[in-house]
Amino acid sequence: MVKSVGIVGLGLIGGSLARLLVERGVEVVAWNHNEKPYAAARRDGITCLTTLEDLAAAKPEVLFLCNPLKVMPEMLQRLAPVLDRNTTTLSDVGSVKGMVRAQVEEAGLADCFVGAHPMAGTEFSGFAASDPAIYDDALWAITVDETTDYERFLKVAALITDPVSNRIIVLDDQTHDRAAAMISHAPHVVSTAFINELSANPDRNIAAALAAGSWRDMTRVALTDPERTRAMIEEDADNVEVLLRDLAGRLTTFADDLHAHDDAALTRFFEAGQAFRDYKLRERKSGNSVTSGDAGRITIAVPESGWQQTLLDSARHGEHIVRFIQPWQVEVETRSKV
Amino acid sequence: MVKSVGIVGLGLIGGSLARLLVERGVEVVAWNHNEKPYAAARRDGITCLTTLEDLAAAKPEVLFLCNPLKVMPEMLQRLAPVLDRNTTTLSDVGSVKGMVRAQVEEAGLADCFVGAHPMAGTEFSGFAASDPAIYDDALWAITVDETTDYERFLKVAALITDPVSNRIIVLDDQTHDRAAAMISHAPHVVSTAFINELSANPDRNIAAALAAGSWRDMTRVALTDPERTRAMIEEDADNVEVLLRDLAGRLTTFADDLHAHDDAALTRFFEAGQAFRDYKLRERKSGNSVTSGDAGRITIAVPESGWQQTLLDSARHGEHIVRFIQPWQVEVETRSKV
Repeated sequence: MVKSVGIVGLGLIGGSLARLLVERGVEVVAWNHNEKPYAAARRDGITCLTTLEDLAAAKPEVLFLCNPLKVMPEMLQRLAPVLDRNTTTLSDVGSVKGMVRAQVEEAGLADCFVGAHPMAGTEFSGFAASDPAIYDDALWAITVDETTDYERFLKVAALITDPVSNRIIVLDDQTHDRAAAMISHAPHVVSTAFINELSANPDRNIAAALAAGSWRDMTRVALTDPERTRAMIEEDADNVEVLLRDLAGRLTTFADDLHAHDDAALTRFFEAGQAFRDYKLRERKSGNSVTSGDAGRITIAVPESGWQQTLLDSARHGEHIVRFIQPWQVEVETRSKV
Repeated sequence: MVKSVGIVGLGLIGGSLARLLVERGVEVVAWNHNEKPYAAARRDGITCLTTLEDLAAAKPEVLFLCNPLKVMPEMLQRLAPVLDRNTTTLSDVGSVKGMVRAQVEEAGLADCFVGAHPMAGTEFSGFAASDPAIYDDALWAITVDETTDYERFLKVAALITDPVSNRIIVLDDQTHDRAAAMISHAPHVVSTAFINELSANPDRNIAAALAAGSWRDMTRVALTDPERTRAMIEEDADNVEVLLRDLAGRLTTFADDLHAHDDAALTRFFEAGQAFRDYKLRERKSGNSVTSGDAGRITIAVPESGWQQTLLDSARHGEHIVRFIQPWQVEVETRSKV
């Protein structure tokens, strides 16, 4: 089991993770770009260091980069000459994985890197807003490629399933970033396109007066910080571009079908998402999407060759890893499938 | 003041309106396509009649058609030969106004018709779910055209502002239906396109696992009854078609700008909806969008010629009619503007 973890950036995500790990008996060393959170962090049992170089010198077994993505290249360049790669496995919590891996490779740190992205957070930021509970029952995406060392993967993954007690799915960067484009980045663009549409309309006050729940839900994410939204979208630009063109095609086809009164095509459009409606209905009925009890748990053997594909396939089947029984054997929870 | 109102259809909207009017001292006569709600409605003081023809014969001053839109032509055809047009002004509560007016004209009832659409409702239906409180502080769109008789308009409008105590805006059908396409119908299509996109994706279980708030909000309305959604969209097909083509264009342009790394264009995209973000921020700060107290109220003179345009312009300025001071003078509440 991993006994020491390093954290770069004591913000909401890094601070909450640091506090949670201390609670679970892991030694945590941290560095933040300023010392503002240090007094509070030290009270929580976190060892706070003066420089990033000091953090590398402390040789934590796993080092999580929890800094903003825009300073990632700088952090990696500073770490490259000082990180003890034999001892330390590098990880991160960034919301896009392809770009981060490219930057890690650029810094020459690919051999000790395993990507991670916890599905956790609130609308707040900073150590003052941190709370170990944001990780309650959270799912993490762990991202790997064909060169990832299994021992290093296991270090990060078992840290998440065991002391952190979270679930994981193992993905390649591209699968992660394409899914993120669908469930978050593209919705942000579409939501913004709607408020642009209304703002440009001479009858905007009438539309705003008539607006109710469907408009509120459709446009909520367009009200969040547009600078942050833009950065997030540009970091996943290729996937967002593909998806927006696909959605534009779907809307144009629907407009054509509506124009042509094509009953069969309209029926197909409204039936096409039934798998997802049924999935949400099952989820609502069971309280959450977990198949309860041991009945929903199975054991999977992980092959030494092609382990990445085996674990990716498991994620595709809707399975979440909850435990490493042995290094090459995982327990997964079977969840409702779309 | 209107002393008697007829209601066709004792569902959620009609039943709640009937009960509210009885509470406010208005005599209410009603007919429903079956007698299921009659026992409860009678206990609430509503006079329930055996046939639609009996309802017409009761000669209410205003008769609201609260039936489903799909049976509107049948209701109108049955009313046409028996309605006393001198006594009764016909209105409705339909969510699309152009189609209803066309059906009213087809039935030869245009001369006694004034359209209405209350912004009220819940996810439930039927008289058992009715509740006068769904109209608390509600806004109604009253829809007129150049042939609408002002006396009849005044009858419906003053019924809503006075005993019902709701606000109104006066619109033409096209303005109403275009706004409805923007704030409700197009969002339903886009939301459905997103669940179709996910359902068709081989990585749908991974995307569903990673989904959080932005996906939940973007797709909520796609989970409601697709048959009802489809009907709603087809009833406003022309406006929905135009808007979807416009949105598809916006998404394609954004994809092009993202591809070209066109910083200036991306900046414009994220700035274009700032008027709406600012409006929501003001709304959040003030608790709601009403300029509080008498300071936000002004009096508008309504000209005998061109009253429709004067009241439409008032709605465009973000004003809601709260009271008829005299037949040709209204008090309006000035609300936050987008």
